[in-house]
Amino acid sequence: MANEKKFVQKITSRNTDFAAWYTDVVKEAKLCEYSSTKGCLNYLPNGYAIWENIQQNLDKRFKETGVENVYLPMLIPESLLNKEKEHIAGFAPEVAWVSHGGDEKLEERLCIRPTSETLFCDLWQKQVKSYRDLPLIWNQWNSVLRWEKTTRPFLRSREFLWQEGHTIHATREEAIKRTEMMFQIYQEFVTNELAIPLISGKKTESEKFAGAEDTYTIEAMMHDGKALQSGTSHFFGNGFPDAFNIKYLDKENNLHSVYETSWGLSTRIIGAIIMVHGDDSGLVLPPRIAPTQTMIIPIAAHKEGVMDKAYEILEKLKKANIKTKIDASEKSPGYKFAEQEMLGIPTRIEIGPKDIDNNQVIVVRRDNREKIPVAIDNLEKELPIILENIQKDMYNNAKIFLDNHLYEANTLEEMKEIASEKIGFIKAAWCGSEKCEELIKTETGGFGSRCLPLEEQNIENKKCVYCQKEAKHYVVWGKSY
Amino acid sequence: MANEKKFVQKITSRNTDFAAWYTDVVKEAKLCEYSSTKGCLNYLPNGYAIWENIQQNLDKRFKETGVENVYLPMLIPESLLNKEKEHIAGFAPEVAWVSHGGDEKLEERLCIRPTSETLFCDLWQKQVKSYRDLPLIWNQWNSVLRWEKTTRPFLRSREFLWQEGHTIHATREEAIKRTEMMFQIYQEFVTNELAIPLISGKKTESEKFAGAEDTYTIEAMMHDGKALQSGTSHFFGNGFPDAFNIKYLDKENNLHSVYETSWGLSTRIIGAIIMVHGDDSGLVLPPRIAPTQTMIIPIAAHKEGVMDKAYEILEKLKKANIKTKIDASEKSPGYKFAEQEMLGIPTRIEIGPKDIDNNQVIVVRRDNREKIPVAIDNLEKELPIILENIQKDMYNNAKIFLDNHLYEANTLEEMKEIASEKIGFIKAAWCGSEKCEELIKTETGGFGSRCLPLEEQNIENKKCVYCQKEAKHYVVWGKSY
Repeated sequence: MANEKKFVQKITSRNTDFAAWYTDVVKEAKLCEYSSTKGCLNYLPNGYAIWENIQQNLDKRFKETGVENVYLPMLIPESLLNKEKEHIAGFAPEVAWVSHGGDEKLEERLCIRPTSETLFCDLWQKQVKSYRDLPLIWNQWNSVLRWEKTTRPFLRSREFLWQEGHTIHATREEAIKRTEMMFQIYQEFVTNELAIPLISGKKTESEKFAGAEDTYTIEAMMHDGKALQSGTSHFFGNGFPDAFNIKYLDKENNLHSVYETSWGLSTRIIGAIIMVHGDDSGLVLPPRIAPTQTMIIPIAAHKEGVMDKAYEILEKLKKANIKTKIDASEKSPGYKFAEQEMLGIPTRIEIGPKDIDNNQVIVVRRDNREKIPVAIDNLEKELPIILENIQKDMYNNAKIFLDNHLYEANTLEEMKEIASEKIGFIKAAWCGSEKCEELIKTETGGFGSRCLPLEEQNIENKKCVYCQKEAKHYVVWGKSY
Repeated sequence: MANEKKFVQKITSRNTDFAAWYTDVVKEAKLCEYSSTKGCLNYLPNGYAIWENIQQNLDKRFKETGVENVYLPMLIPESLLNKEKEHIAGFAPEVAWVSHGGDEKLEERLCIRPTSETLFCDLWQKQVKSYRDLPLIWNQWNSVLRWEKTTRPFLRSREFLWQEGHTIHATREEAIKRTEMMFQIYQEFVTNELAIPLISGKKTESEKFAGAEDTYTIEAMMHDGKALQSGTSHFFGNGFPDAFNIKYLDKENNLHSVYETSWGLSTRIIGAIIMVHGDDSGLVLPPRIAPTQTMIIPIAAHKEGVMDKAYEILEKLKKANIKTKIDASEKSPGYKFAEQEMLGIPTRIEIGPKDIDNNQVIVVRRDNREKIPVAIDNLEKELPIILENIQKDMYNNAKIFLDNHLYEANTLEEMKEIASEKIGFIKAAWCGSEKCEELIKTETGGFGSRCLPLEEQNIENKKCVYCQKEAKHYVVWGKSY
């Protein structure tokens, strides 16, 4: 027991200090760690494997809608970045500049891409001539770099991994449809695969992406009540394409503007998985995205037949496409349990001499620690059901948490009271003025607008929570990462 | 016919000007093109899809041997790059330097990784303490940057995509075993999946990777007789790890050095696929790696029933996991044929009213243009056999080409004569002196040592082709990309 306690005691309790708990889990579950390159992460096997599963799953969804993958350079000439004014204003303060190639000073500086709208537009300008060349529905899986001052593992680092989709279309309607389609895919992916409930909708003017006409966002609530923006889909209209002079000839030989979208989801989402599902024993991974779904832990491994049976089960489960590992190390079973829990592996299979006599194993759920005896002969049928139940329960519990921490306010006083006493989001009506938006944030101690939520709700006769003038929208407000 | 001719005439004939043919194929098959970032490529959907297939296939092979994927930063602090002397000497002239983050001048310059040995060693130095922490068998799929002066699509560009595997082990023997294992995987992958025959073996001292004890290489012969180094696996001994002070305690608490390997394969290999298999009609892709394996081209598509049948076949083949597309555009069939050939799609399915009456289609092989009538009912069984035959024949033809262009020489005169009259490689014995190696290259007009080939051959009583002293090795010599 000494060992187990020591292992578990390595992490701070979630309710004592959420930030310290988060850092401890990231470290002890060996997901990533800071490198000697300041502000940049080493993504370790446990963390990167989660990202690989996210990639595979999302990539399949993208391709089913006609997305093609490409890869554009990591470096952008300064003159290219400068072409769209709002864009450069948004990104210039946070890009890294390459000044030398070998010993030679460059004639023009190159920045490491903070995002690739300018590169895509530059390429399209050369490629698009006729309506036959449209639409182009492209995506890349890559890393980008932004010179952040303060960084936190997964949540904010100078270099991070993501996918960035970029598309152009012949009509505004088609581009808007694509923006919404990708927003829809993010919602489905995050709720179904990551078991994370969302508040989703459009961003306000002031929170939009630099250069976009509309930004759609999915926002998740962390266990400390703060929001994490988890994916965005932007409609650009023809601002960027016109700045880059991308035009096409229609069937009647008339010259037209094209309409653009971009959409991205990053390794930030791993931070959301940790902060939505984790507990005081460590990480809790949703079964559908877990790199390992079950860990076989032999009890009294030295007794005759135990290891043979354990390996037999390993092979059987692998054949049934259940992601299974065995911990055959010399550590104590208790230590192995604690380790499996820290890593967030959704189930463990305990198997000892008595279990073998009864032709059964004990399946222990990571999320609620329920112990489920399962006949060995039925294991490959029962385990997938248990895993799906965990997936469902994890979503439902997170949804209950979200619902329980989503408040409504009609006046600034109410809002301030909730903000000072509770954690979570606040839904309140808003007149649409940027000034009110800013003042709400200041006076509530940081509750910024997260989004105009999708769910229709009658705004008629509602007043702005700040100025009490006629309201135009409901807004969900929250502190954010 | 006018259209088809025009399409095909876009590319130079392979025998007229091989370099121009190569550039034309890359462009017309829309694989990649230069970006506004000098020396860097845009990898377009057709090119990137080949790389994705290579990734998936290789990654599966890696993981079956216990490789775990990670991701380390793209930037390396100058002091870190400087830690291993041979390494920095090899790479310093060709790295790009970041001098500024936003408006702030950096205290220490950062280079964009040309390769990541130093980052891996820096990370391991923090992680490895005991024999329990070994081995670490890691890989990353990423991009690297080298400030090349002259560039060519896929073959040499400033930024390129690759995988770089890095491992450390408790013993020299285990590390050598891993070096050879990955070398073996490259050989199997390239011969079996890409249908490219190889000359494989160790590099000479002068051709080794900066800092390595041994470098294993796979070398392919392009259609112009030149060699393309297509993948390398390096054994580092403990040079790097000692420079970074990576040590471990064994079971008896004694401190030991660790032994390191690294191994990489890049998008260069796409250049090899083009230059080994391509012909005057464009690209020819091996079926196992082709993103599209068959293109359905309807003939007289306006006739009743043709399009219905074509789509019916499309669905049937997709269900059978054959990568199938249909060209339902308004172009002429002849133009579509030329386009499918240019893209290197291994087969096309021609289907018109007469074929439908006979309940058959015509399958046309891309590699030899053979026309094969196949009953529609048997198509999902017959087509995979045809594809496998293409794969086999492509390998065999490339192997015959390699064998026919692999010469032997006993004297420098013989070597010079072959070098001036033939294209291909020359096998010749060598004494082991770097001076002879260099002079052979100069006097033959560029035939450098490619490798000491694996196949055992009795070197006894053989003389060095240059100095006629006792030979130590056979070497395969060739001009290279």
